[in-house]
Amino acid sequence: MRTSIATVSLSGSLTEKLTAAARAGFDGVEIFENDLLASPLAPEEIRARCADLGLTVDLYQPMRDIEAVPEAEFARNLRRARHKFELMGRLGTDTVLVCSSVSPLAEDDDALAAEQLGRLADLAQDFGIRVAYEALAWGRHVSTYDHAWRIVEQADHPALGTCLDSFHILSRGSDPKGIEEIPGEKIFFLQLADAPLLGMDVLQWSRHHRCFPGQGGFDVPDLVRRVLHTGYDGPLSLEVFNDVFRQAEAGPTAVDARRSLLVLQEELGLTDLPAPAALTGVAFTELVTPDAEPVTALLGTLGFARTARHRGKPVELWEQGEARILVNTGPAALSPSRLRSRGGTPVDGTTLAAIGLESPDPAAAARRAEALLAPVLPRRRAAEDAPLEAVAAPDGTELFLCATNRPGLPDWRADFEDVAQRPAAADALRIDHVALTQPWHRFDEAVLFHRSVLGLDPQESVDVADPYGLLRSRAVTNADGGVRFPLTVGAAPGDDSVHARHIALATDDVVAAARRFTAAGGRPLPIPANYYDDLAARFEFADGELETYRDLGILYDRDAHGVFRHFYTRTVGRVFFELVQRDGGYRGYGAANAPVRLAAQHAVR
Amino acid sequence: MRTSIATVSLSGSLTEKLTAAARAGFDGVEIFENDLLASPLAPEEIRARCADLGLTVDLYQPMRDIEAVPEAEFARNLRRARHKFELMGRLGTDTVLVCSSVSPLAEDDDALAAEQLGRLADLAQDFGIRVAYEALAWGRHVSTYDHAWRIVEQADHPALGTCLDSFHILSRGSDPKGIEEIPGEKIFFLQLADAPLLGMDVLQWSRHHRCFPGQGGFDVPDLVRRVLHTGYDGPLSLEVFNDVFRQAEAGPTAVDARRSLLVLQEELGLTDLPAPAALTGVAFTELVTPDAEPVTALLGTLGFARTARHRGKPVELWEQGEARILVNTGPAALSPSRLRSRGGTPVDGTTLAAIGLESPDPAAAARRAEALLAPVLPRRRAAEDAPLEAVAAPDGTELFLCATNRPGLPDWRADFEDVAQRPAAADALRIDHVALTQPWHRFDEAVLFHRSVLGLDPQESVDVADPYGLLRSRAVTNADGGVRFPLTVGAAPGDDSVHARHIALATDDVVAAARRFTAAGGRPLPIPANYYDDLAARFEFADGELETYRDLGILYDRDAHGVFRHFYTRTVGRVFFELVQRDGGYRGYGAANAPVRLAAQHAVR
Repeated sequence: MRTSIATVSLSGSLTEKLTAAARAGFDGVEIFENDLLASPLAPEEIRARCADLGLTVDLYQPMRDIEAVPEAEFARNLRRARHKFELMGRLGTDTVLVCSSVSPLAEDDDALAAEQLGRLADLAQDFGIRVAYEALAWGRHVSTYDHAWRIVEQADHPALGTCLDSFHILSRGSDPKGIEEIPGEKIFFLQLADAPLLGMDVLQWSRHHRCFPGQGGFDVPDLVRRVLHTGYDGPLSLEVFNDVFRQAEAGPTAVDARRSLLVLQEELGLTDLPAPAALTGVAFTELVTPDAEPVTALLGTLGFARTARHRGKPVELWEQGEARILVNTGPAALSPSRLRSRGGTPVDGTTLAAIGLESPDPAAAARRAEALLAPVLPRRRAAEDAPLEAVAAPDGTELFLCATNRPGLPDWRADFEDVAQRPAAADALRIDHVALTQPWHRFDEAVLFHRSVLGLDPQESVDVADPYGLLRSRAVTNADGGVRFPLTVGAAPGDDSVHARHIALATDDVVAAARRFTAAGGRPLPIPANYYDDLAARFEFADGELETYRDLGILYDRDAHGVFRHFYTRTVGRVFFELVQRDGGYRGYGAANAPVRLAAQHAVR
Repeated sequence: MRTSIATVSLSGSLTEKLTAAARAGFDGVEIFENDLLASPLAPEEIRARCADLGLTVDLYQPMRDIEAVPEAEFARNLRRARHKFELMGRLGTDTVLVCSSVSPLAEDDDALAAEQLGRLADLAQDFGIRVAYEALAWGRHVSTYDHAWRIVEQADHPALGTCLDSFHILSRGSDPKGIEEIPGEKIFFLQLADAPLLGMDVLQWSRHHRCFPGQGGFDVPDLVRRVLHTGYDGPLSLEVFNDVFRQAEAGPTAVDARRSLLVLQEELGLTDLPAPAALTGVAFTELVTPDAEPVTALLGTLGFARTARHRGKPVELWEQGEARILVNTGPAALSPSRLRSRGGTPVDGTTLAAIGLESPDPAAAARRAEALLAPVLPRRRAAEDAPLEAVAAPDGTELFLCATNRPGLPDWRADFEDVAQRPAAADALRIDHVALTQPWHRFDEAVLFHRSVLGLDPQESVDVADPYGLLRSRAVTNADGGVRFPLTVGAAPGDDSVHARHIALATDDVVAAARRFTAAGGRPLPIPANYYDDLAARFEFADGELETYRDLGILYDRDAHGVFRHFYTRTVGRVFFELVQRDGGYRGYGAANAPVRLAAQHAVR
């Protein structure tokens, strides 16, 4: 199916919007009137620009407050419409959106509305234009799609049809089943938007909080399925009013938008994408740093040993149990431009820049990522290196799709040569989760990316109070918990560099691990005594248990499934480590303790 | 009355919060439990810190999910409460907030709730502690203040009273009249918060959008009046959960908070402040610039002439009609530290740094400003200068309270000596409005500041679409429109320096003024042709009228009262000018045209 996007969904000048839409692969655009008014380009120039970019102009929108008004007012409205129909001729588009009136002059009179919309359609027909009438969820008298359709049906004019908008329909809780009773050829246009389920005034909700399909709480696929059932063959078009997108660079937003339509089309069986990667674990994480000493010292106290080094690049492999960490002191460490290019904040010091994702079929996983518009990264490898598939996540993190010790598949470790004995694996240590702070403008995109590209499952979103601002955290995980990424973002764009990323290492005995860390000279994050007094009030512990936690700086949480004990190192550059012990099927990440941890991190900065 | 603030209302560590509260002049604090848990200070140390700062600890909060639960659960709750009562002893506070349960274990049984709260009060009494029971607006079974009071009444225990919270009461639309039936000595605590009328889920509304009294839409004074009528003699205490305040520096937020209570107390007749300044106009605006040439060239093309210079400083006075602009190339122009210190963005080039406000009693106006915690600025003057009263607005703008040609009052012009003939006043030009972009964290404070300190009247808030993000604009004006300041802010903190401030000059003939400007070599902001095509569709014009506007770059708007025609210069540094003609009592600022103007400004940058 053809895809389209309303220019209002993207940030910037009209030219920037058109370029971004075309680069992301959209077939067409809806021209939002205010974008045209504010553009120095004449309508003919906009038409030519679209043609050059391979975009059709699928809709001009909106025309407001037209119908069911006193005759003198309607005459003025027809005069206004004539001007706009002439403009549409210059712009090269044949469909105009008329949304149901919010004017105090409008009467609650369907017959009058139908009669005047018919006369508008008469005029439109003279210009070769079709009128798509849409019910705004807050229309004065017409606010539901079935009501708008009844008026269109009553007018019975070949140049008059209806426009369906998933937000207006689903925000009111209307049953989309009735859509199937509308003849497909009378559905002139279909606008799609999702939204989080906020339970707020519908006008404000629509104007500020729409998002792309799959990023909110509406069942957009079900609605589209019903529309397609009618025989509708127009484009799937996105119309999203969103305060964040308004501020974000248009290019990445357009890619995010088109990815949402690809995912939607896949769900509807309209397109064939390579199947999702069944990720089985984290093969490695890669830290880049201009100075390896502080972070390798920390890895040493955590029990890691340097086991191998890259054959051609200044990259060392540190291992413990199944946990593997690459420390890269190469040129990448000095060039944060990749991060900056995607809206991240350039940073100094040690950063978590890449993750190796264990996959049974890395090549297929990479094909899916590419099909879903993930930027494919140039392979940073010498001729003799193992082929490594890598794509960029929305936050700029490099994701390597790879295999470790899988017969028949190239092994990323083949690029490394051993430098030491393996350490005695004191614990069956592995990577439990990798917490990835996100640039503010890209959070919803990040969740959809990890779900659609990597096949991970988004968990519930939680608010976490940092002393200097609220954070939102949402984990994406695979089915068995072998891959877990809590994604975190501030409540408003601020200094993205404040919050470090971290690597959480799973252990079966966090107390022993914390003891060894301290004995090796490691300095745990200091946890306030008040926290332990509160634990004593909330839970009952065995004799000495709480004192052990207090002495070692171990935090404690419980959920319906089990117990979580965890422990933090101090931060090096922009990275810190956590040791976690999950018992009895605990599923979370210790969010209840996060405010204490964050305050402690601010205190030691 | 004593004033208090909950630590959750302020950003930062507990120490930072306490310091900010004390510096702003609060008498006490509510200690929010999470702030204590996250603090490295022991309760005794917090107590000592508060004592050193002259703060009492008025409340410990909250204790959750206590009442109306099965006996085994209640036993655990009593155990937890005992721990907290011990803690409160160490902290030196005697009142604890218990909020109505949200637990799924809670039963809808007032008798059980009363019985268990009575037993909690028994325990509290042993520790010399009082329990203040409050209805959360989203409590599971108890969600209204009168219901909570009925349970307290039923328990009939000397150590059990109720806590009233204006948000919980007014957000549900409860009638506060019933408050007067509660004996004052049973109201153990009063928490105050305002909120914008958002019509959203009450829990989310409360957690993210509370604000200080006078900054939202609730009638907080009416509620407080009723509480005082009962004989309540505890503190007026602010408890505000707000995503913006969480990110903003604690010091200025605490000042904003205390100012809101001063204004509230004034409204209730509880305190005597100097009366509001009856501002009569804008005496001057002051631009500071490291290089006067570009801005003075622009002033010249606008018809301004350099008429005087300061006797002791590098400041020139430019005049036209009643409009006066100071151009300051002194040290202030090179030191944006005043702006930075209040959260503003340091900027280069020409900035609008100060405004002279015409007042019949500048000294009284300054006394009021000082009483309302406006920072009084050191007078930048030599010994022979006229005394000038100056205070800083929340955005760092210097506000001079002054008089021009008023018998018996010092004249700010006395510091200046004439350098040229006055220009022939082509128009009865005066300053129509001064548009002041605000730092994101300080917008609500700015509105309250201008209302309370300067006696200006806030108008409706409007959203304006900038191509790179939504803006919110709210004008504050005096009764006759002689002083008008549209305050503008982005939807989220971004680069505050993007949007320039501007000075709008009133003229009786904007067409003639625009012609003279162009003839003098001035370059107007280029307005797109599409904008004029849209005007043609929307309005009917006399022959040639629209063409004139199109040729000159004049914008056009209408409201219910009259017509507005306006015209923009290009931006110099961070300042631009507008020429406006108001006819027939038009009241707005051309907000409908703002998206076109903003896009044009981005296009010429």
